[in-house]
Amino acid sequence: MFPTTVKASASVMLQGAMACETDKMISSLRNPKEKKIGSWRFITGDYQGIPLIVAVTHAGVSYAAAATAVGIEHFNPAAVINQGTSGGHAPSMHTFDLVIGADSFDASAWISKIEKNDADWRHIRFYAVKDDYYLTDGYRISADANLLMVAKDMSKDYHKGNTAVGTIATSNNWNRQQERILFLNKEYGSLCEDMETHAVAQICRSYGVPFIGLRVLSNTELHDEKFNPEAGHACQEFALSVAKAYYEKYLKFMVE
Amino acid sequence: MFPTTVKASASVMLQGAMACETDKMISSLRNPKEKKIGSWRFITGDYQGIPLIVAVTHAGVSYAAAATAVGIEHFNPAAVINQGTSGGHAPSMHTFDLVIGADSFDASAWISKIEKNDADWRHIRFYAVKDDYYLTDGYRISADANLLMVAKDMSKDYHKGNTAVGTIATSNNWNRQQERILFLNKEYGSLCEDMETHAVAQICRSYGVPFIGLRVLSNTELHDEKFNPEAGHACQEFALSVAKAYYEKYLKFMVE
Repeated sequence: MFPTTVKASASVMLQGAMACETDKMISSLRNPKEKKIGSWRFITGDYQGIPLIVAVTHAGVSYAAAATAVGIEHFNPAAVINQGTSGGHAPSMHTFDLVIGADSFDASAWISKIEKNDADWRHIRFYAVKDDYYLTDGYRISADANLLMVAKDMSKDYHKGNTAVGTIATSNNWNRQQERILFLNKEYGSLCEDMETHAVAQICRSYGVPFIGLRVLSNTELHDEKFNPEAGHACQEFALSVAKAYYEKYLKFMVE
Repeated sequence: MFPTTVKASASVMLQGAMACETDKMISSLRNPKEKKIGSWRFITGDYQGIPLIVAVTHAGVSYAAAATAVGIEHFNPAAVINQGTSGGHAPSMHTFDLVIGADSFDASAWISKIEKNDADWRHIRFYAVKDDYYLTDGYRISADANLLMVAKDMSKDYHKGNTAVGTIATSNNWNRQQERILFLNKEYGSLCEDMETHAVAQICRSYGVPFIGLRVLSNTELHDEKFNPEAGHACQEFALSVAKAYYEKYLKFMVE
């Protein structure tokens, strides 16, 4: 990448699906300008001297993927951070704990055994479709190393809960079955489930744009903790701090 | 819609994920021009006097959704047809049979019961997330009525198999469990499973672009029939005939 050519794109795109996952980021922008593309809102502005784009993607894999593609096409961001609420998969974690997504996978992209009866969610393996359309077991997508490092750094200042670095399981599934949750945690290391991270990771990888997913637990079936929208605000604050630190470390020089 | 304003967009976008789902459509175009956006190929051209756009979306929900959004943004098509191969869910259907997608649903968008043990795929219900983020049981998206009518008409000329009009179940799941397949067929009426239709339906609905999914059975676990890529060619031919008939009935007047 040649810094002189990316002058106009040295901004970070912060994404959230719902109001409680985007309202604080939007209200933190100075000189906000809103552009609607399709049914998605993109709000550009200045956050403590840093150029940001806040994207409201809607919930779910399809909308998040599509919003990411049109957002990249239109705004050419230097990095994308998808953030928001999630349901806990790790028994040690509680509402307000943070998950820094070192990687993610598509928890709906499984292939089952060939079986007549006793169809069971254990009889699956996860996969990805490669460009040549063969299946691969390399179904995880890793976060950008620099974004990951910055997020780990900034988590030291997060005091609303604990922090874990690990795997986010994405799908439109809304899984409330403890046995299935524990299976995904033990067998595949998923710390939480959401409906956007891995979809956005796929699109960012195909465009070569650095990406990370950041999630707060807003609820966890394992401890009977119900959805708390305030957790969404905590994650927005954390994501803003990560965007700012990343900009100052990696992007600032591009526009100076 | 005002015909005079859509002069440049009176074309039909035909989508396919893989080579065997797009090669015949691409080679049928006269004066083909290719544009790459992101990692997707869009080939515009003339098919028997009709302006078409063939989009190669890659396999899976995220890529299909994103390719649809950038395709609509860039080419402003008058209609979108997603077509290709699928795995059979209906016991009466075999390889080379056609499914005309009267509607579709996201077979990964389920919410489970709250349960500690015995997590089972029966203990689910399908849902969609509405714009206000409440769940709704209205999780199906219907095909455009005119596209559906034209596809039914044209299926009379399809002689490589039988035709059924009904429901397409979309997800990145690759389901080879007969019990689960029959459950989806009986309880939810799905005739086949693919990885794109419903994702594209969601994006087209949000843009207000008429849409239909057309699928051929390339395989079916219920009868131990293995994947046959030739079925993909049959579906491309059928989709071309639908695009042409739809253009002549509904779009031609727009550019005359």
